[in-house]
Amino acid sequence: MSHTLMVVAHPRTDSLTAQVAAGLQARIRDGGGTVDVLDLYAERFDPRLHPEDEPDWENRDKRYSAEVHAHMDRITAADDILVVFPVWWYAPPAILKGWIDRVWNYGFAYGRSTPRLAAKRMLWLGLAGATAAEYARDGLDTALDTQLRVGISEYNGITASAVRLLHGTELTGVPVHVRPARVRETLAAAEAARQEVLGDGRQHYTSRRTPQRGTALARVEATS
Amino acid sequence: MSHTLMVVAHPRTDSLTAQVAAGLQARIRDGGGTVDVLDLYAERFDPRLHPEDEPDWENRDKRYSAEVHAHMDRITAADDILVVFPVWWYAPPAILKGWIDRVWNYGFAYGRSTPRLAAKRMLWLGLAGATAAEYARDGLDTALDTQLRVGISEYNGITASAVRLLHGTELTGVPVHVRPARVRETLAAAEAARQEVLGDGRQHYTSRRTPQRGTALARVEATS
Repeated sequence: MSHTLMVVAHPRTDSLTAQVAAGLQARIRDGGGTVDVLDLYAERFDPRLHPEDEPDWENRDKRYSAEVHAHMDRITAADDILVVFPVWWYAPPAILKGWIDRVWNYGFAYGRSTPRLAAKRMLWLGLAGATAAEYARDGLDTALDTQLRVGISEYNGITASAVRLLHGTELTGVPVHVRPARVRETLAAAEAARQEVLGDGRQHYTSRRTPQRGTALARVEATS
Repeated sequence: MSHTLMVVAHPRTDSLTAQVAAGLQARIRDGGGTVDVLDLYAERFDPRLHPEDEPDWENRDKRYSAEVHAHMDRITAADDILVVFPVWWYAPPAILKGWIDRVWNYGFAYGRSTPRLAAKRMLWLGLAGATAAEYARDGLDTALDTQLRVGISEYNGITASAVRLLHGTELTGVPVHVRPARVRETLAAAEAARQEVLGDGRQHYTSRRTPQRGTALARVEATS
């Protein structure tokens, strides 16, 4: 069975993001898979890149900080990478951006004639307060999909990757008696996205190598 | 004359980003303007948003952390906001993303019937290693422009805003004797972008309120 690295990026353990992450962990384990949970806030990950973790374009075998190499090892060990995060400013929280900045480094994630991470599958699962229509109006859905899927996953050779947004996940204005149903719906949509993109450890999802803009996101909205 | 808040986000003081920032500061002061330099690394800004700085959707007058209010005061005092940063993964470095996450908060930057920051001008000036053609190929230029200009500046009511990229700014592979000319070209392009977007304290640049995707970035590339 497959081994999943689940990256979680929310400051509160009682958040909907944390609930979705916990629900997905249970489903993966129910299916016989294993999960390494990387809770960036709980592990006090520092997203600020300092010179010791800057790429050296003349040395792809540069030794980065010990912390970064420990994170690289967790990525290497995974078949699937599942990133669960709230969408802030139509983008990942800083703590998650910095995990990419520091860990997905030259010589490890990219810069090899044979990409080392190419066989992995990757799902970016974002909890978005706004509706799908609000994201689509100014192209903010396409922007996020392009940055994460094309600009990060595919840049590192991971073609089996996708961005999925769970919309309407800000429950402040939702009547209390309606919230449990909304939470269940969100969990179900999250699990559907996981099944589609990461499968059950046997099937293999592949995104288009050269995607048509806009079409990938249409699929996002259909799942939430 | 105008007062500029210049936000800088690079871990090294000898970086090309730092040189561009220093050059722009000198030009602003030569023109009679004043500058508040916010060097996020030098000030050890922590980009991780914690619950004390989470928006409370039921209280737009929430008191955030003292550090965040100090940053808000610096924004309030500025006529122009000039952000100088290296583009990492087709996006701002984590330390800059977290400055937005924490400081551009509900009730201050957005969530008022009359946006408080609407009269300001804002320039996102990114130093990009890749060429304009490489950014354009998969729409990563449009994605970055959409996220920063539409998703942040315009979301907060700042219509006089733009994203400008200075391309080809990775000088590792450039012969040493050619580099001084490349640095001068980069500084000149940066100053041209500043003049265009932030003007001389009298003229007023206004971006389209509802931009046509792709066209804004054509202007970016023309300046660099």
